[in-house]
Amino acid sequence: MSYNIVTVSRQFGSGGRSIAKAVAERLGYEYYDNELVCQIAKESGFSEDFIREAGEYAGYKSSLLFSLATGSMSSGNGMSTTDSLYVFQHNFIKELGEKGKCVIVGRCADYILKDRDDCFNVFIHASMDFRADRIVRLYGEREDSPEKRLADKDKKRMNYYKHYTYRRWGDASNYHLCLDSGAIGIDKCIDIITDLTK
Amino acid sequence: MSYNIVTVSRQFGSGGRSIAKAVAERLGYEYYDNELVCQIAKESGFSEDFIREAGEYAGYKSSLLFSLATGSMSSGNGMSTTDSLYVFQHNFIKELGEKGKCVIVGRCADYILKDRDDCFNVFIHASMDFRADRIVRLYGEREDSPEKRLADKDKKRMNYYKHYTYRRWGDASNYHLCLDSGAIGIDKCIDIITDLTK
Repeated sequence: MSYNIVTVSRQFGSGGRSIAKAVAERLGYEYYDNELVCQIAKESGFSEDFIREAGEYAGYKSSLLFSLATGSMSSGNGMSTTDSLYVFQHNFIKELGEKGKCVIVGRCADYILKDRDDCFNVFIHASMDFRADRIVRLYGEREDSPEKRLADKDKKRMNYYKHYTYRRWGDASNYHLCLDSGAIGIDKCIDIITDLTK
Repeated sequence: MSYNIVTVSRQFGSGGRSIAKAVAERLGYEYYDNELVCQIAKESGFSEDFIREAGEYAGYKSSLLFSLATGSMSSGNGMSTTDSLYVFQHNFIKELGEKGKCVIVGRCADYILKDRDDCFNVFIHASMDFRADRIVRLYGEREDSPEKRLADKDKKRMNYYKHYTYRRWGDASNYHLCLDSGAIGIDKCIDIITDLTK
């Protein structure tokens, strides 16, 4: 069947974002990733940097240090700022689903749009070796080893997803399709997703 | 790349077994599911019924009642009979991997053969509704509701897998490909797996 919305969740360094962008281009769908950040910033008043970091990684139970560091302890309505941002994002993504055909990267979109039957959910992952090699090639060396950077990001995304959805990030049952981009290849992943959703 | 071995793990009622069988036929590979049970029975001395049940569902920590019921408390070498069967199965599947091209269903084969780079691991799942409808159609009504039968089988497979592999059954990272057979369709699943492994 043809799907109006494709959500792509991905492990850091798996190429999930590049895959999602290419799928959107092939299908002629709108693509929301950084574009989503900019639009949410414009409409919510949150800064783009805050949305980029807090809007995908924070909000979990152990975020006291993060909250202190970002001053996100409370937004005045009893919710932490990260929770307020989540609620704003949630509504924004719900509305996006009404607007037209699109590919959305991350931000629990698969969960937020779970009641729609025209939404196809994809998870992209790959081995630590493949991802470590890829992030060094793309983003260069850092003080922390690529393995540590990957483990940190994975943990943050997992905690964020669990906190807001009560689901386990990367559990196959939450997605229609999960692909190991290292074994299958980025181009082949693009082919498969496009073929299944067009 | 071409893979010599395809392992298929699957939720009960998802059609994973039918998919695996069709993939083996298309690829011209040996197919091991019930065939595996017969061969293990022949070589190990365990009965086929015991292997069919205990060899996929038992062995987990809370299996005292099961052990009492099946008389599998100890096989005389300090291991429970289910653990002994697992060890036999483990070695049998390792050897199978050396023999030639094949498709293997269940029995932790993905984990047992994890050090081979010519082994492609697939997980097939589907929604409760799709599976409930399918098992009633295929196996008829039972005293327990189809939802209860599915939940019981899922839990047993998950416990068995966790007990012997220390991994989480159905976690996307353990497989190269995970497919929702209800959303994607049985035939399309066969096409995708065949295309990626041939």
